Amino acid sequence: MAEQKKMVEEITSMDVDFAKWYTDVVKKAELCEYTSVKGCMVLRPYGYAIWENIQRIMDGMFKETGHENVCMPMFIPESLLQKEKDHVEGFAPEVAWVTHGGNEELEERLCVRPTSETLFCEHYKSIVHSYRDLPKLYNQWVSVVRWEKTTRPFLRTREFWWQEGHTIHATAEEAQEETIRMLNVYADFCENVLAIPVVKGVKTAKERFAGAEDTYTIEALMHDGKALQSGTSHYFGDGFAKAFGIQFQDKDNQLKYPFQTSWGTTTRLIGALIMTHGDNNGLVLPPKVAPVQIVVIPVASHKAGVTEKATEVYTRLNKICRAKIDNSDNSPGWKYAEYEMKGVPLRLEIGPRDIENNQCVIVRRDSREKYFVSLDELETKIPELLEAVHKGMYEKALNRRTEMTYTAHNMDEMKDIADNKPGFIKAMWCGERACEDKLKEDVGVTSRCIPFEQESISDVCVCCGKKADKMLYWGKAY
Amino acid sequence: MAEQKKMVEEITSMDVDFAKWYTDVVKKAELCEYTSVKGCMVLRPYGYAIWENIQRIMDGMFKETGHENVCMPMFIPESLLQKEKDHVEGFAPEVAWVTHGGNEELEERLCVRPTSETLFCEHYKSIVHSYRDLPKLYNQWVSVVRWEKTTRPFLRTREFWWQEGHTIHATAEEAQEETIRMLNVYADFCENVLAIPVVKGVKTAKERFAGAEDTYTIEALMHDGKALQSGTSHYFGDGFAKAFGIQFQDKDNQLKYPFQTSWGTTTRLIGALIMTHGDNNGLVLPPKVAPVQIVVIPVASHKAGVTEKATEVYTRLNKICRAKIDNSDNSPGWKYAEYEMKGVPLRLEIGPRDIENNQCVIVRRDSREKYFVSLDELETKIPELLEAVHKGMYEKALNRRTEMTYTAHNMDEMKDIADNKPGFIKAMWCGERACEDKLKEDVGVTSRCIPFEQESISDVCVCCGKKADKMLYWGKAY
Repeated sequence: MAEQKKMVEEITSMDVDFAKWYTDVVKKAELCEYTSVKGCMVLRPYGYAIWENIQRIMDGMFKETGHENVCMPMFIPESLLQKEKDHVEGFAPEVAWVTHGGNEELEERLCVRPTSETLFCEHYKSIVHSYRDLPKLYNQWVSVVRWEKTTRPFLRTREFWWQEGHTIHATAEEAQEETIRMLNVYADFCENVLAIPVVKGVKTAKERFAGAEDTYTIEALMHDGKALQSGTSHYFGDGFAKAFGIQFQDKDNQLKYPFQTSWGTTTRLIGALIMTHGDNNGLVLPPKVAPVQIVVIPVASHKAGVTEKATEVYTRLNKICRAKIDNSDNSPGWKYAEYEMKGVPLRLEIGPRDIENNQCVIVRRDSREKYFVSLDELETKIPELLEAVHKGMYEKALNRRTEMTYTAHNMDEMKDIADNKPGFIKAMWCGERACEDKLKEDVGVTSRCIPFEQESISDVCVCCGKKADKMLYWGKAY
Repeated sequence: MAEQKKMVEEITSMDVDFAKWYTDVVKKAELCEYTSVKGCMVLRPYGYAIWENIQRIMDGMFKETGHENVCMPMFIPESLLQKEKDHVEGFAPEVAWVTHGGNEELEERLCVRPTSETLFCEHYKSIVHSYRDLPKLYNQWVSVVRWEKTTRPFLRTREFWWQEGHTIHATAEEAQEETIRMLNVYADFCENVLAIPVVKGVKTAKERFAGAEDTYTIEALMHDGKALQSGTSHYFGDGFAKAFGIQFQDKDNQLKYPFQTSWGTTTRLIGALIMTHGDNNGLVLPPKVAPVQIVVIPVASHKAGVTEKATEVYTRLNKICRAKIDNSDNSPGWKYAEYEMKGVPLRLEIGPRDIENNQCVIVRRDSREKYFVSLDELETKIPELLEAVHKGMYEKALNRRTEMTYTAHNMDEMKDIADNKPGFIKAMWCGERACEDKLKEDVGVTSRCIPFEQESISDVCVCCGKKADKMLYWGKAY
């Protein structure tokens, strides 16, 4: 127990310093490591395995909804980036520029993609000519670069890994449907795979993606009461098509501009699950993306038959889930702390007395509940318990979000909540940018989204007191 | 049939102009597309789906041999690249340099990784301290950039996709075993997945990777008699460890330098399978990586019951392999040509008369053989036929390579073969760099490898006539 305590002590308590707790967990659970390139990280095996599970499951959802994967180059010529005016204004200040190839200066600078709308547009221009070529429902899994000033592992790094979907359609309606469809895929993924409840809604004009007509978002609430934008889906109208001169011949023989969307989620989702589910003992991983779902720990393994029985149990488990056995010389107490730190959803302990009773002990990482399970029932009980862990984690997160969501009717209430109660604030807004700016300046909150599920809190703007019919989520954000 | 002919005519015959045939196939089969960044390509859905299958199967082989995936940053600071002298000399002339982040000039230039030995070394230095930390068996799937002057899709592009394995071991023996193990994994993959026979061997000092003590290679022979290096595995000794100051405390409490390897295969493998298996009708894809393994084509689909039966057959097939049905308005002849162009291994034709006889027609892409198969036997016959296609393709390629492999005893024979008979040339070599240079200059061939399977052709060097005990493969190469 001394060892267990020691290991746990290495993590700063989240109540003392949440930011320090976060970086401690990231480092001690061996998710990633810093490098000599500022703001760039190494994804270590355990962190990358989580990302692989995220990719595999989400990619399956994309393919089920008819999407195909492609891969664009990582470089964008400066002239190409400049074709859509709002887009270049939004991104040019934060891109990395390649100016030399080998010893020669390039005729035109190339930026390392911060996002790939311009590359997809160039490609669509060359392959879309007729209504028969539409829609194209493409996605790519790559890394992108944005030259951020301040960085934090997974949350904001100069290079990050993501998927970016880019689709092109014959009609505005179809493109709008796609935008919403993919937002729903993201919400479904967060809730049913990562056990993270999210608020779905649309961004205000101020918070829109550079070049978009509408940006939809899913917003999650972290343990410390800050909001994390966890996925966005953009409707472009025909703005990019006009800027890039993409046209197609429709069924009526008319030449028309097509309509586009893009949507993305990133390795930030790993930051989201750390800050939603983690506790003072370390990570708590949702079973569906946990690299190891259950770890088997032999107790008193020097006694006859323990290692053999534990190995037999592990072999059976490994056929139905991602199992691991730890036969190392470390003490059981050390191992308990280690796999709690790494957030393994279930721990199976088995010792001589358990074997006598044809049972084992299962401990849930999320609730620390203990179960005695008959060795004859492992194949049914373990999947049930993994499902129970997922549900337990989701409900816990949802309850916390409910408790940390407040309602404000005027600026005094708004300030009081923002200063004293970390969380989401629901409040009415008149639609004016000036009020949004004032709330940022005076209260320190930004608009997270106009949620699809509206409530009428009052009929006046929380800021200016003029007529208002939109209820927004506000908060401090990562 | 007119349509079929027309489509086929769009591909240049490989006997007329092999290079043109190659680019025609790449383009018409929609594998990739050029972009406005010279030497960079878009991997289109069909090309990317082949790469996804390659990745999935090869990644499984890596994991079975105990490897873990990670991801390093894409940038290398100039000072880090320069730490290993041979390595920087080999790569610096062909890297892309990032000099600006946003509007600010960087204090130190960053190169876009051409390969990641230096990044892995920096990471190993920070995580390897004791023999308990060894070995680390890491791999990553990323794209890399090399500023090539002349480029060709898949074969030589400025950005290409690959996997790079990087491992670190306590002993030289263990690292050497790893180097050979991974070469064998590559050879196994090429032969059993891509149906491409390869020669395994070691490179001469001249052809070694920058910084390696030994470079092992698999060499394949293309349709036009040119060699294609298809995968390499490098043994580094402790050279990188010394350059980067990586040390570990061994069991005997001594501080020691560890030993390293790296190994890689790239999207070039797609070029290899096009040029090994393709014919004048287009691509011929090995079943294990074909995005579509069998295409169902209804014949006379306006007749009652044909579409329904074809759909039923497709639904059954899709449960046992990657199947597709083409219900479009195009004529069967057009469809035959289309799927031949795309290299789909099997075509299933089904029309009214077939349905009456409870059968269908299967046509193999590789041999064009036709089979009548009872609809009751699809689930057993189709997997057998896919296996037969794989074997047929491998044998055809192996026979061609055997026919195109020659033996030379002296410079006259060497010149005669090099000028008149495209293919591999087996010849003895004394071990002197001067002879290798002379063969390149006078005959136009490079050493491909010193094969593991040695034969004694004579006991003198093909070039200088001095004593020689090594038999090499020579050839013109991509």
